[in-house]
Amino acid sequence: MSANTFGRNFRVTTFGESHGKALGVIVDGCPANIEFDLEYIQSQMARRRPGGTEIGTKRNEADRLDVLSGVFEGRTEGTPIAMIIYNSDQKSHDYSTIKDVFRPGHADYTYFMKYGIRDYRGGGRSSGRETAARVAAGALAKLILKGKGIEIDAGIRSVKNIVCKGEFLPPFKAPLFTISEERDEEILSLIEEAKRSKDSLGGIVECHIKGVPAGLGDPVFDKAEALLSHAVMSIGAVKGIEFGLGFDATRIYGSENNDEMTSSGFLTNNAGGILGGITNGEEIVFRAAFKPTPSIAKEQKTVDTEGKERMIEIEGRHDPIVLVRALPVVEAMSAIAILDMYLEDSKYERQR
Amino acid sequence: MSANTFGRNFRVTTFGESHGKALGVIVDGCPANIEFDLEYIQSQMARRRPGGTEIGTKRNEADRLDVLSGVFEGRTEGTPIAMIIYNSDQKSHDYSTIKDVFRPGHADYTYFMKYGIRDYRGGGRSSGRETAARVAAGALAKLILKGKGIEIDAGIRSVKNIVCKGEFLPPFKAPLFTISEERDEEILSLIEEAKRSKDSLGGIVECHIKGVPAGLGDPVFDKAEALLSHAVMSIGAVKGIEFGLGFDATRIYGSENNDEMTSSGFLTNNAGGILGGITNGEEIVFRAAFKPTPSIAKEQKTVDTEGKERMIEIEGRHDPIVLVRALPVVEAMSAIAILDMYLEDSKYERQR
Amino acid sequence: MSANTFGRNFRVTTFGESHGKALGVIVDGCPANIEFDLEYIQSQMARRRPGGTEIGTKRNEADRLDVLSGVFEGRTEGTPIAMIIYNSDQKSHDYSTIKDVFRPGHADYTYFMKYGIRDYRGGGRSSGRETAARVAAGALAKLILKGKGIEIDAGIRSVKNIVCKGEFLPPFKAPLFTISEERDEEILSLIEEAKRSKDSLGGIVECHIKGVPAGLGDPVFDKAEALLSHAVMSIGAVKGIEFGLGFDATRIYGSENNDEMTSSGFLTNNAGGILGGITNGEEIVFRAAFKPTPSIAKEQKTVDTEGKERMIEIEGRHDPIVLVRALPVVEAMSAIAILDMYLEDSKYERQR
Amino acid sequence: MSANTFGRNFRVTTFGESHGKALGVIVDGCPANIEFDLEYIQSQMARRRPGGTEIGTKRNEADRLDVLSGVFEGRTEGTPIAMIIYNSDQKSHDYSTIKDVFRPGHADYTYFMKYGIRDYRGGGRSSGRETAARVAAGALAKLILKGKGIEIDAGIRSVKNIVCKGEFLPPFKAPLFTISEERDEEILSLIEEAKRSKDSLGGIVECHIKGVPAGLGDPVFDKAEALLSHAVMSIGAVKGIEFGLGFDATRIYGSENNDEMTSSGFLTNNAGGILGGITNGEEIVFRAAFKPTPSIAKEQKTVDTEGKERMIEIEGRHDPIVLVRALPVVEAMSAIAILDMYLEDSKYERQR
Repeated sequence: MSANTFGRNFRVTTFGESHGKALGVIVDGCPANIEFDLEYIQSQMARRRPGGTEIGTKRNEADRLDVLSGVFEGRTEGTPIAMIIYNSDQKSHDYSTIKDVFRPGHADYTYFMKYGIRDYRGGGRSSGRETAARVAAGALAKLILKGKGIEIDAGIRSVKNIVCKGEFLPPFKAPLFTISEERDEEILSLIEEAKRSKDSLGGIVECHIKGVPAGLGDPVFDKAEALLSHAVMSIGAVKGIEFGLGFDATRIYGSENNDEMTSSGFLTNNAGGILGGITNGEEIVFRAAFKPTPSIAKEQKTVDTEGKERMIEIEGRHDPIVLVRALPVVEAMSAIAILDMYLEDSKYERQR
Repeated sequence: MSANTFGRNFRVTTFGESHGKALGVIVDGCPANIEFDLEYIQSQMARRRPGGTEIGTKRNEADRLDVLSGVFEGRTEGTPIAMIIYNSDQKSHDYSTIKDVFRPGHADYTYFMKYGIRDYRGGGRSSGRETAARVAAGALAKLILKGKGIEIDAGIRSVKNIVCKGEFLPPFKAPLFTISEERDEEILSLIEEAKRSKDSLGGIVECHIKGVPAGLGDPVFDKAEALLSHAVMSIGAVKGIEFGLGFDATRIYGSENNDEMTSSGFLTNNAGGILGGITNGEEIVFRAAFKPTPSIAKEQKTVDTEGKERMIEIEGRHDPIVLVRALPVVEAMSAIAILDMYLEDSKYERQR
Repeated sequence: MSANTFGRNFRVTTFGESHGKALGVIVDGCPANIEFDLEYIQSQMARRRPGGTEIGTKRNEADRLDVLSGVFEGRTEGTPIAMIIYNSDQKSHDYSTIKDVFRPGHADYTYFMKYGIRDYRGGGRSSGRETAARVAAGALAKLILKGKGIEIDAGIRSVKNIVCKGEFLPPFKAPLFTISEERDEEILSLIEEAKRSKDSLGGIVECHIKGVPAGLGDPVFDKAEALLSHAVMSIGAVKGIEFGLGFDATRIYGSENNDEMTSSGFLTNNAGGILGGITNGEEIVFRAAFKPTPSIAKEQKTVDTEGKERMIEIEGRHDPIVLVRALPVVEAMSAIAILDMYLEDSKYERQR
Repeated sequence: MSANTFGRNFRVTTFGESHGKALGVIVDGCPANIEFDLEYIQSQMARRRPGGTEIGTKRNEADRLDVLSGVFEGRTEGTPIAMIIYNSDQKSHDYSTIKDVFRPGHADYTYFMKYGIRDYRGGGRSSGRETAARVAAGALAKLILKGKGIEIDAGIRSVKNIVCKGEFLPPFKAPLFTISEERDEEILSLIEEAKRSKDSLGGIVECHIKGVPAGLGDPVFDKAEALLSHAVMSIGAVKGIEFGLGFDATRIYGSENNDEMTSSGFLTNNAGGILGGITNGEEIVFRAAFKPTPSIAKEQKTVDTEGKERMIEIEGRHDPIVLVRALPVVEAMSAIAILDMYLEDSKYERQR
């Protein structure tokens, strides 16, 4: 139950229920003397906030951060930074009809089995709203990494079976932030159609991390892929992750997959920037599979807390697709993991 | 650099270089009073040991465990269990020709960048040999889980582009341990051909975990998928992981992907046994992508520690495919992760 | 720098500067379904709050807790509990004269050396005010322990050289909460005199923990004494701790110090309830040495941030003695440590 | 139960029972490229080994370290260093008479209550023999610290009521290693007398750490005193610890206790080198209280595992006093804690 902290050095602890008073995050282990650019952090919050995109939920939250500690005269103090987001547009009455019913594809049933108690007002901790706190901490991490020349960008590679081919050249464009815009119209009508049929969609997010020095990540259990997978697979709807060629690497020969080296560097980047769990200085590349949003208005079979069979139609203000708002979350978790590795590695510098 | 421990409760610490005196593992947090079935543990070691299969490396190691502590009169004492495996068939002279050269697809370059020092005798800690220690600890975890009705099995789902269709019905058969044997002959000739052309192969391993009670895993950062991904992605050659439908879930509608419930349970298991990061009582199902073995005898371009361009042909006793010997490793890491979640959950039982 | 979390299971993370917007605490790992008695927690806050005792600082803070998360319909949810205390009576202008000067006996110099930046408005994180957040978390821990029959009480054993002899029979009486009241008048005039001479006093706090079952604490590095010492020695002014006979045990023979057993239990409790690092079912007894408050109005030699010699007289609203307000802090840290051991031990119950 | 690891960065994991096959330690997080001076480490082992001093146990163990991993061509590799000590002179039959009886002052009863199983052959993990593994790891830490100009020395300040006054000027002399030798003869006859009367003695160990830079230790929960207390209080017979003036600081005024500063540094070191939990560049000074050895041949009352009353006379090869052999253990734990803080602090250097 004490799993609300991520990181060994840049330690991020989140709290808050979807329909409680507030959400928030404590960042412990943030280096001192960093210029704290609240505006930048707030700009990342805007990318994720409900009501911030044309295609998302109708819930509208300003997601203004209240910074309670750790910053003094515009700079970080080396002490814990607490950032709070008050919930304003909760409308918890929306949820009263589902109080005793387990929504298919949701954590309702499993939370009930784990705790014997459940905040039925919209998912509690399992709500996507929890990721707002991650984005706040992740934006701070991105800010620090930027100062070290490390940039993180995520874009949409596919929606359902529509794949956006093409090179990864951020920044990507609203409203979809796909890697190539060629199929945006097709995707928008697919989303429109899903909405109409009370259904939902998933897709694949691709993330690139540029400027990472060689040497980050640890051998054995804390390989860079392992830590990044832990970070990204902890995002609600993610059901798979792959690095570099990923699953496609299983379908070619070793001689095709190995990245050969010359005096000017690696000839290819099939490994996705990581060898033996340690970064090799190339771009880190991974893709994350997002399942379709489980909240749909279509009628579904389920049971209630007594085990009785029920039919359910989830009304509410849900996204037919979470991919767009998930992009800053993927970037945030990646940033936290990379900065954590960076600080871990820094410990040993004096010794080198 | 201190990343040689996995687990919060059942804590596994491995040590030992591929060509050093010995490898080993310390298991701290193992419950007391468990019957310590060394024979069972040794049988799992046999599944992974070099020389143990027809299609693997020619290095031959008995991989006999020497249990130094934590077991008294055949039962665990609740104190750390130390298990040592002495290296006997090291042949480190095999490696002297590659002393200053970075093998493509290997950790040679990244270790050198991280530590400024490198055990060139066969990969050191980055060698697949390190997983022997994981299998010892994992076998102990499997033993304990078995006593709780939890069974873990892994099989080969595909080799290169040959996919083994069919239901997952272990135990699988030697020498390939594929999920269905229909295409074994094809696969064996593919391996034979790869060997002849001095090349190597990868593939996909599928793992099922049966009997896991609902309620394991933690919300937010330590979701069951996140912990299992951390565990499995920390295995050397793994470049991707997916749960349940995984990447395929991105290609269908929410209404198709959601697992509906009736009074007799879930109608489908697209989620792979995990909802909101917490186990739902269904079988946990995941697949891991293994890249082709990087050690190949084919000539490749690379550089040496001075940055000079070199050609390399990796002689040695390497597996053209690691999948078969990887199966007990995947099971071991899964067992460690699941037992760790189980113990984490047990903390709170008194309170329920 | 990431040392603002205590506990492995009942994880307490505090944040907030003395003169910032707010202080607070996140409790992660609190069991679900516990009745959350805010009134009780608030009553513990009152014991520590500035302005709450006749003999303390003149700073007046209501120290009202704002519970932001983790509690639903009056019960804990198993999710992180966030409790915030807003600073109201900050008067940070009191501190501007000491902006560039290191106060003797304070953390000013060492923080400056560590971070190169310092919140000069009254100690920042090193202020005694930080302990308010610990008391909130500790009160919750005490509440849970009470439900298990475990009670924690601290009293004043000595002030300067005035020792209060007598049996430990809580509850103790205001305003001093000494273990026996016989010398209260003497102590009160000593405090009065210290105030007049612009000086300060220290003393010894004794703490008893009743009802702890045998078996808590871990062998080797996490012995019960080690964890309790870590917890209590982390309180600002504490410079020593001893268990049972403590330093006096060094002055007698083994045959005098060993606690003999009969069928009705231990004959003595010289060990203070802990043997080999594990609780033996007897009362846990320890004493903590509090140095005199470093903030005094008497003139002292010091240097400024440039290294120039300066004389300093610390004006402000400081306690001449912190012992009374320290009692709930000692109880809080003890409660957190004991509950943490209790949960650690619970993990293994199923297995016994 | 998983408390056999100490440290966040320089992570020390010990294993092994007093009468099992072997003891050992894994050091994870040791910086790479350090010259591994085995002779030095072995010299520290000699200071602690049974049979190594005139006044200790008659058990004779060479305590030769077998280094299994982490060292290559005489230098650390950055990978886990495993050091094993085989038990040779076990004589476990000595212990068979106490198989079912709880020795007073020992962990026998509490281990039995915790685990329901007990290694009755001489204390198992609770034996002083476990500290051999700590000394090995601590010697490595001392070696690394020495390279940074940090020196750690412990001496005997008192035995029973005989206090050795005088300045702390190591190295101290055999056989007693008292801080001043003036009262050595008195102490030696006290020990002789205790042996004759089948009794045992305790005393106070003082430890000084020179050359620690200002800025180590963390605010709040991981203060330098808290971490050192955790480290030292985890040694078997220690029942108290104090820093600088310690308990005596409670008996003077704040104006007497505060260490004033001038441009040439601190005028006094009453704080023992730590202010607000962070080192101030002065010598760290602490004292640890060792209770008299619990193993005595004098007849004592106790009970057996069935709860029946029994008389016990502990035969065996026990030390009448452990202080001399405890000195390297106190230094070892201090070294581990200080190096751990040093590495923790190093993380943030790049950022300063």
